[in-house]
Amino acid sequence: MKREVQLGQAKWLLEPGCVVLVTSGTLEKANIMTFSWQTPLHSGEPCLLQLVINPNRYTYDLVQESRELVINVPGVKLAHQVHMIGTTSGRKGDKFEKSGLTPVASAMVAAPLIDECAANLECRVEQIIDLQHHHLLVCRAVRAVAEAAYFDGRWNPERFHTLHYLGGNRYGVMDRMIEV
Amino acid sequence: MKREVQLGQAKWLLEPGCVVLVTSGTLEKANIMTFSWQTPLHSGEPCLLQLVINPNRYTYDLVQESRELVINVPGVKLAHQVHMIGTTSGRKGDKFEKSGLTPVASAMVAAPLIDECAANLECRVEQIIDLQHHHLLVCRAVRAVAEAAYFDGRWNPERFHTLHYLGGNRYGVMDRMIEV
Repeated sequence: MKREVQLGQAKWLLEPGCVVLVTSGTLEKANIMTFSWQTPLHSGEPCLLQLVINPNRYTYDLVQESRELVINVPGVKLAHQVHMIGTTSGRKGDKFEKSGLTPVASAMVAAPLIDECAANLECRVEQIIDLQHHHLLVCRAVRAVAEAAYFDGRWNPERFHTLHYLGGNRYGVMDRMIEV
Repeated sequence: MKREVQLGQAKWLLEPGCVVLVTSGTLEKANIMTFSWQTPLHSGEPCLLQLVINPNRYTYDLVQESRELVINVPGVKLAHQVHMIGTTSGRKGDKFEKSGLTPVASAMVAAPLIDECAANLECRVEQIIDLQHHHLLVCRAVRAVAEAAYFDGRWNPERFHTLHYLGGNRYGVMDRMIEV
């Protein structure tokens, strides 16, 4: 069951550097995009996060307009959907339909969240920074939820296995935890 | 044995979102800092990478001056050093000395590389972007080397195990690869 995550703790959902699925648009006309380039931008509150995006992407058009998105954290069970979503454009058809993933209305933003993902961070895009090749979306999470069995302020890699992109059709899987 | 990595391929060294060790300063007076917040910023050449840094850090002072650093990729065998380096300040003593890691002269920049790390990316800092809480170091890799047994254009997680920060004293370890 998913539980609310305090916003001061929500950055831990992205801290491992895992692949995420970003939803944009509206429940009626949504898009999904796979991101490997994301980091937190602040340790506490506000919960600031960044996504690095190629401005040619369909998601960029949608986000420029709405300034809202949801960052969803998939595990290894969704690897095939993650890869398909990462290698096709939403301009060429509805990726919720193609992937079979379930869009659910968010509480705070127009973009839907992905039900099958273990965590969902509803975000407002506060700033778009134009770098030479890519742009940065500086996002502020306004609500976060995560599967209580997998996340108790930190991910449990023995129960939930994030994906880490390696290139081509290969993904690393986080299976193990160490304490130092 | 470490081999040169073509700059158009070097971003794959950071793509999994792993923890990195960043060296700055000079061979004589160096510092090391642990970063969890890093991403590539470009897919090909030039090889652009970003590090998110708190401007209070000693590394920030050193990099502001020299505009050079090395991004080093440690594996799970260096977990204790990674954690010690991430929880102490170089203002309070030499972290090469404390960690036992070996500084080696870089080919292209003044900052030394860490011999024990599986990859080393020598970088020039092209831009520093002041965000509200943290700053972004936009880096251009000018030389990259990696352990040939672990990296052949992509990391092999069955041979080399990157670290992914979870919080506190816990790190996730990438052990497994899937092909989709």
